Amino acid sequence: MKVASIRTNGAAERDGIFAVVDDDLTACRISHPHCGLQSVLDGMDWQVAGPPVAFDPARCFSPLPRAYQFLDGSAYVNHVALVRRARGAQMPDSFWHDPLMYQGGSDGFLAPTDPIVGNPDWGIDFEGEIAVITGHVPMGASREQALAAIRFVMLCNDVSLRNLIPGELAKGFGFVQSKPACAFSPVAVTVDDLPGWRDGTLHGTLKIDVNGEPFGRVDAGVDMTFDFGQLIAHAAKTRNLGAGTIIGSGTVSNKLDGGPGKAVAQGGAGYACIAEQRMIETIEHGSPRTRFLDAGDRVRIWMEDDTGRSIFGAIDQLVQLI
Amino acid sequence: MKVASIRTNGAAERDGIFAVVDDDLTACRISHPHCGLQSVLDGMDWQVAGPPVAFDPARCFSPLPRAYQFLDGSAYVNHVALVRRARGAQMPDSFWHDPLMYQGGSDGFLAPTDPIVGNPDWGIDFEGEIAVITGHVPMGASREQALAAIRFVMLCNDVSLRNLIPGELAKGFGFVQSKPACAFSPVAVTVDDLPGWRDGTLHGTLKIDVNGEPFGRVDAGVDMTFDFGQLIAHAAKTRNLGAGTIIGSGTVSNKLDGGPGKAVAQGGAGYACIAEQRMIETIEHGSPRTRFLDAGDRVRIWMEDDTGRSIFGAIDQLVQLI
Repeated sequence: MKVASIRTNGAAERDGIFAVVDDDLTACRISHPHCGLQSVLDGMDWQVAGPPVAFDPARCFSPLPRAYQFLDGSAYVNHVALVRRARGAQMPDSFWHDPLMYQGGSDGFLAPTDPIVGNPDWGIDFEGEIAVITGHVPMGASREQALAAIRFVMLCNDVSLRNLIPGELAKGFGFVQSKPACAFSPVAVTVDDLPGWRDGTLHGTLKIDVNGEPFGRVDAGVDMTFDFGQLIAHAAKTRNLGAGTIIGSGTVSNKLDGGPGKAVAQGGAGYACIAEQRMIETIEHGSPRTRFLDAGDRVRIWMEDDTGRSIFGAIDQLVQLI
Repeated sequence: MKVASIRTNGAAERDGIFAVVDDDLTACRISHPHCGLQSVLDGMDWQVAGPPVAFDPARCFSPLPRAYQFLDGSAYVNHVALVRRARGAQMPDSFWHDPLMYQGGSDGFLAPTDPIVGNPDWGIDFEGEIAVITGHVPMGASREQALAAIRFVMLCNDVSLRNLIPGELAKGFGFVQSKPACAFSPVAVTVDDLPGWRDGTLHGTLKIDVNGEPFGRVDAGVDMTFDFGQLIAHAAKTRNLGAGTIIGSGTVSNKLDGGPGKAVAQGGAGYACIAEQRMIETIEHGSPRTRFLDAGDRVRIWMEDDTGRSIFGAIDQLVQLI
C-alpha cells in the first residue's frame, strides 16, 4: 500500500488528509471521514471512499506533516568517516559497531516541494536518506520485534547547515540550530509493496539531481552497516517508542573498492550530500570546489523501480533566502 | 488559568481530555466535546461545561501526554559546571553566553505519578526543571516575540541515566538512550496566573523530596543565566517552532556565595538532581556517598505559592525495575 497526506484548506489543514495512492502515483482515494496518518497509526478505523482523484505530489505534505519523534541514525558509516575527515575530526572505531543516532526536530516537516528557506552563510546542504515510520515499539525490543514494527518506508531530505555543525557538535548535545526542518517523499510505502526491501534494508538506487544535473546515484542496499531493525532496537533500549516514530538511515553513502567514491561526472555513484563531494575534492585537490546551496538552487531526490517508475514520488526543493 | 489532561478509558485516551482546573487544585471542568491540549494549542475553539468534578492528580497525564517537540536547555549553567566537573570533563567558557540545548524525546511522556521503569545499573537520576509550552514561534524570533509565545508553565522531571551519558556525549550527537521518557507536573499554568513569573523566569522554590526527605529547596528565580525568552529564541534561530513545543530550563541549580551549594541537611538549598550532590561529596570527601535511584525509591517535585498551596500539583514517581 502507498499512502500520502494531502493538503486542504479545511479544518484538517495542519496534518493533511490521509489518502491511499495507486501504485503508479497517478490517482488516489482520500479518507472518509477525513483523518490524518497519525490517527491511522494510533489505531483509528479508516476507509477510503468515492471515486479516485488525480494524485498531485505538489499538493502533498510529508506523509507525517509533523511527528512525535524523528530519530536519525548514521547507518552508512562511510558518510560519517568522510564528513569527520573533512572537518579534521577523529572517528572512534566504536562507530562501526555502536549506531550513531540523534534526536531530530519533528514539530513541522517541510512538504516535499516546499522551499528550503535559510541563509547561505549557514552552509545549506541536503542529505538523501531512507526513513521508516514505526508503530509502537516496547522498551528493550529485539531487532526482530523492531523490524515487525515498521509500518511504512519513505525517502528523506535531512537538510543540514554545515557551517553551524562544528560549533554545536563541540558542545556535545547534538543538533538544534544546525538541523532545521527536513522533508520527506510525497508517498510512504508498506514493506510488502517494496520488492527491494530485504532484511531491514531498502535495496535500490537513490537518485539525486542538483539543478537538473546528476549528483548522486547511490545504492541504498549496500554499505548500510546497521539495518533498520538494529537502529530501532538501539533507540528503544531504555524507552518505548510511540506509534508514528520516524527513524532515518542517515545519508546514504557508498564506498568504491573499499575507499571513497567518485562523482557521477567521473563515472562513479556520486554522493547523497554536498559535504561528501567536498571531502573528495579536498583529498584530490587540497580544497573543496563544490559550494553549498544558494538561493535558486534546486535539489531533487527520488527512487525508481525496475521499470523506471517513481516509487515514492520526488522530493523537489528550491532554496530561498530567508 | 490552570489546565490539565485527564485520563479516560475512551477514544481520547492517548492524549487525555483537556480540563480547566480551579486555582486550589480541588476541582476541574472538562472540555465538551472532549478535546486534547494540543488541539487547543492548534487553535481549536474549546469550552468547558457541566458541573465541576473533583480534581485528582493521579488521573492526570502530563499536560501534553506526547508532544511534537521537547527542547531542553541548560539555563542554570552552574549545574553544567558541576556535572562536567564530576565527570572530569572541561566546560568551555562559551557555555556562559551561548545556551546549551538538546532535542529531547517527546513521543510519550510519563504521567506525573507514573513509575520510572529502568535498570539501576544505568544510574537513574531525576532532574527538577521548569518548562514552558509555546504557541507557534517564527524562525528568527526575538527574545520579546519568544516571551509573547509562551502559553503555559509547568514543572518537569527530566529523568537521566547517568551511567549512559558519558558514552553518548562522547559521540557528539546528544542524548538518545541516556534520556528516557520524562514527566511533567499534573497542571500547567498561564503566566498571568503566576505571580512569580517575571522577565521570562519563574521565581519560587522548587521543592524536591527523595523518599520523604528534603533533597532540594532550590530557587528557580536566581542563577538562571538564560531566561525562557533567550532559550526559545536560540531554538528558533534557523527554524519555526510548532505550537505545542516544550522548552525546558535544565536542572535548577543554585550557587552558594559564588561556589557550589550545600545539602538541605547541612542548611543549604540542596540540589535538583543526585549528580550534583555526588559532585559536592566528591569535592568534600574524595568520592560520592549518595547512590543513584533504585527500585522502591520515590521522588516528589512540586512548588508552593506564598500561602503554601501547591501551584502545579506534584510529580510523584516511584522507581521500578524493568
